Amino acid sequence: MTQALRHDAMRARNLALVLAAVGARESVTRAALAEMTGLTKTTVSKLVGDLIEGGLVVETGAVRDGERGRPGVEIRISGQHVAALGLEVNVDYLAVCVVDLARTVRLRRTQAVDNRAAPPVDVIARLGDLASAVVDEAVENGLRVVGGVLAVPGPVDMTSGVVHNAPNLGWRDVPLASLLRFPFPVRVENEANLAALGELWFGSGLPDFLHVSGEIGIGAGLVVRGRLFRGAHGFAGELGHVVVSPDGPPCRCGGRGCLEQYAGQDALLTAARAAASVRPAPVPPAAAPGNPPGGMPPREDAGKAGETDKSRETRTSEETGTSGEPREPSSSPEMLLPAQQGVAWVLSRLQEGDADARAACERAAWALGVALSSAVNLVDPDAIVLGGIYAPLFPWIGHMVADTLKDRLGQMRGAVPPVVVSRLGAEAAALGAAGQVIEQVMADPAALLHT
Amino acid sequence: MTQALRHDAMRARNLALVLAAVGARESVTRAALAEMTGLTKTTVSKLVGDLIEGGLVVETGAVRDGERGRPGVEIRISGQHVAALGLEVNVDYLAVCVVDLARTVRLRRTQAVDNRAAPPVDVIARLGDLASAVVDEAVENGLRVVGGVLAVPGPVDMTSGVVHNAPNLGWRDVPLASLLRFPFPVRVENEANLAALGELWFGSGLPDFLHVSGEIGIGAGLVVRGRLFRGAHGFAGELGHVVVSPDGPPCRCGGRGCLEQYAGQDALLTAARAAASVRPAPVPPAAAPGNPPGGMPPREDAGKAGETDKSRETRTSEETGTSGEPREPSSSPEMLLPAQQGVAWVLSRLQEGDADARAACERAAWALGVALSSAVNLVDPDAIVLGGIYAPLFPWIGHMVADTLKDRLGQMRGAVPPVVVSRLGAEAAALGAAGQVIEQVMADPAALLHT
Repeated sequence: MTQALRHDAMRARNLALVLAAVGARESVTRAALAEMTGLTKTTVSKLVGDLIEGGLVVETGAVRDGERGRPGVEIRISGQHVAALGLEVNVDYLAVCVVDLARTVRLRRTQAVDNRAAPPVDVIARLGDLASAVVDEAVENGLRVVGGVLAVPGPVDMTSGVVHNAPNLGWRDVPLASLLRFPFPVRVENEANLAALGELWFGSGLPDFLHVSGEIGIGAGLVVRGRLFRGAHGFAGELGHVVVSPDGPPCRCGGRGCLEQYAGQDALLTAARAAASVRPAPVPPAAAPGNPPGGMPPREDAGKAGETDKSRETRTSEETGTSGEPREPSSSPEMLLPAQQGVAWVLSRLQEGDADARAACERAAWALGVALSSAVNLVDPDAIVLGGIYAPLFPWIGHMVADTLKDRLGQMRGAVPPVVVSRLGAEAAALGAAGQVIEQVMADPAALLHT
Repeated sequence: MTQALRHDAMRARNLALVLAAVGARESVTRAALAEMTGLTKTTVSKLVGDLIEGGLVVETGAVRDGERGRPGVEIRISGQHVAALGLEVNVDYLAVCVVDLARTVRLRRTQAVDNRAAPPVDVIARLGDLASAVVDEAVENGLRVVGGVLAVPGPVDMTSGVVHNAPNLGWRDVPLASLLRFPFPVRVENEANLAALGELWFGSGLPDFLHVSGEIGIGAGLVVRGRLFRGAHGFAGELGHVVVSPDGPPCRCGGRGCLEQYAGQDALLTAARAAASVRPAPVPPAAAPGNPPGGMPPREDAGKAGETDKSRETRTSEETGTSGEPREPSSSPEMLLPAQQGVAWVLSRLQEGDADARAACERAAWALGVALSSAVNLVDPDAIVLGGIYAPLFPWIGHMVADTLKDRLGQMRGAVPPVVVSRLGAEAAALGAAGQVIEQVMADPAALLHT
C-alpha cells in the first residue's frame, strides 16, 4: 500500500468514525467527538468540516458566523441534503419512499396493482414512474437522492442482482438490476430481509428478533445484535417454505405443506372464502345466537368491502399531499386480491364475528406457530415480530401463534420468545430499503464526499 | 482510560495481531510479520520475544544460540507447551481430548457409558477422572493445559453455565459449571455448536456449512464465514426439534413430530428392532432371493452384535497406548443402547442386507431431508455435513437425504446445498471444545502471558 493510499484509507475510516459518533447522539460537540473517537481535536475539526461541506452533518443552534470549533457548538446529522430511495415490488403493490440522512421519512407512496399479470419489464417501468415522481419532489425539497435499494419478494443473487425465482410473482431468473434506470446506484434485495431492517431502524427498536413479512408469500428476516443474518448466499429467512406438514398441499416452490399454503394471504383468503361459499355466513352472535341455517347469504361484494378502509388502499406523499396514482383495476376480481383489499375483507368478516373467517385465521395462526417453533429451535430469536398482513390481523392471530409456540417450546426452553406486532406493516420493506442506503452512507461517507 | 491502561490494551491487541499472523502461515520471519501487521520491526521483535517466553511460538530450524531476529529465522506456533482440554458428556458416552496450540490432537479418550441412569454429579465425577488421567499424561509430556470447554447435549446458558434442559439426559436446570473442579477455567457449551466448530477446525475446512450431530438427540451447528452462529441466547441449532409432522409422535421436548422422533438414534433403533421383532429377518438376498416366511429368528442379542466392532467401542490415548476404562455395563441392555453399539448393530444389519434396517434408515433419511429443507430455507447454508451417528450411516442415508432436499428445494433455489459426510463423527464435539480454548488463547494471548 502506498503512502497516499494509506492516508486515503485512514481518512475514510476516520470520517466514518466521526459520522458514527455524531449519529450515536442527538447532537455532540467537537470536543466530545475527539473524546469518543480518540482522534485529536484538530483532526476532528478537519473531518467535521468535510462532513459539513458534504451536507452530511450540520451545526446546531444559531452559530452560523464561522465560529466553528467554538466550545458549545454542537454537531448533528443533517436531514436537509442527503437522502435515500426505498423501493418495493410485491405481488399486489408497489411502494416507494424517500428517507433523509437523519432517518426521517420524507415521502412515501404505495400503489395497489397486481404484478402477477405483467412482465417484469412493465412492472419495473411502472415502479420507475412512481419513483421518479418522488425523487423529483425530493429534489424540489432540496434533497439529493444518493442511492436506492429495491425490495422484491424472492431470493436475490446479491452480486448480479438477478432474482432467481419469485414464485408468487411468476418470475424466474429476472436480471432485475439491469432493468433499473436511475441516475444513482440501485441494488436489489429480498423483501423479507429489508422488512426486518425496516423494523430495526424505523420500528420497535429491538436489537434481536425474527420479523415475519406476511404477504402473498411469507418471508422472514432475522436480526441478531442489530445486524441482519443473511446466510451463505443471502437466501436465509424463507419462512414461507418451512414445512408445516410434509404431505400437505403442493406449493409453488415445488415442495409440499409449506407454511405459505396455510398462512399466506391467498391461502387465508381461499380458506375464508371457500368456507363462506359452502356455508351460510352466520349473523352476528348477539343478534341471532341460534345461528339458524339459511341465514344471510355470503357477501359477494368482498372486493368492495375492502374499499371502506381507504387509508390502507393507496397511501400518498405525506408532505405534498399529491393524490395517489389511480388504482389499477384487477383484470379478474374473483382471482386477484390485492393485499390490502383482501386483508381488509377478512378483517371486516372478523369484525362481524364470522366463524369462517375466524376458522381460517385459526388455521393460519396454528401453521405459523408450527413453522415458527421450527424457526425458534433453529435460529433462537429473542422476539418474533409479525408484520405485513399479520400486523392488521394481529388481534385475531397473535395470541394463537404465541399459544402454539408455548405448547411446543415451553418445556424445553426457559423463555419462549414473545410474539409482538409490527408497527410498520406493509411499509417495512421500502423503509428498510431506504434505511440500507443510509447505513451505507454512514459506513463510508468518504465514497459520497468524493463524488 | 489511563495512559498505562491504553498501553496494556495496545500491547494485548498487538500480541494477538502478531500471534494471528504467525498462525496464518506454516512459519514466518520477523520481517514478514512486520509487513503483515503494519507494526515496526522493533515492536514485532519485542512481541515475538514475549510470545517465545510464554511458550506460544517457537523459532524454527537450528538457530538456538540467541541470534534472534537474524533474517531467515522463522517463527511458528509452538505445539510443545500450551494445550487445551476438550470434554464431552453425551447420552451414552464421555469423551476427552488434549489439543496443543499448533492444533495437533495429542491425547483422546472415549468411554461408552449410559449417562441417563446417573445423577449429574456422578457423571461429572466420572468425567473428571477421565479428564484427570489425560491432563496428567499431558503434563508428563511437557504440556500445560490452560483451559477447557465441556460439551453437553442441550441448550446451555453461556453466562451461568447452567444446562436448562437436556431432555435426553433427563437433566433440568443443572448448574454444571459449578460442579466442575479443574485447576484451570472450564466453560460449558452446547454439544452441537462445538461439533460444528470441530468440523470447522479439524474436519472438512469448509467455511460455510450446517453440521448435523446425530446422537440420541440431534443438534446442529451453523458456521457462516468461519464463525459459529449462536442466536440471541446461544440456543440456536436445535435441529432435533424442528417439526417433521405436526401431529407426529410426542417428543421429550414437549412438542410433537420432532425430527428426533424419526431420525434420532433411539427412534432409528426402535424402528429397526420393532420391525425385526414382528417380521422374520431376511436371510442375505444372494443366498435366498425368495425371502421365505419363517426364516431366521430376529436377533435378540443385538447388544452383543455391537461388540464385534471393537474399534468403535472405547478409543484410548493414541500416544501412550493406555488401555481404555472398563466399559460400564448397561443396567438394562434391552432399553439402553450406547451409541456406537446401537449404530454398529444397525450397520451390521444393513451390511447383511436387512430390509427392516434399511426401511428404518429410509424413514430417518426422509425425515432428515424434510427438517433440513426447513433449515436450508431458514438459514441458507452452503453445505450440509452429516456427523455423529450419521457419519457411519452415510453410505445408506446420504443420497436419500440429498434426494429429499432436491425434491423440496430444487425448483426454488439455483443450487441445493450438497450433503457431505463428517470425517470426525462422534469426536467432533470434544475436538471443537478443545479448539475453542485454542481460539481464545490466539485471540487474547496477553491474558495467558500475564498469568
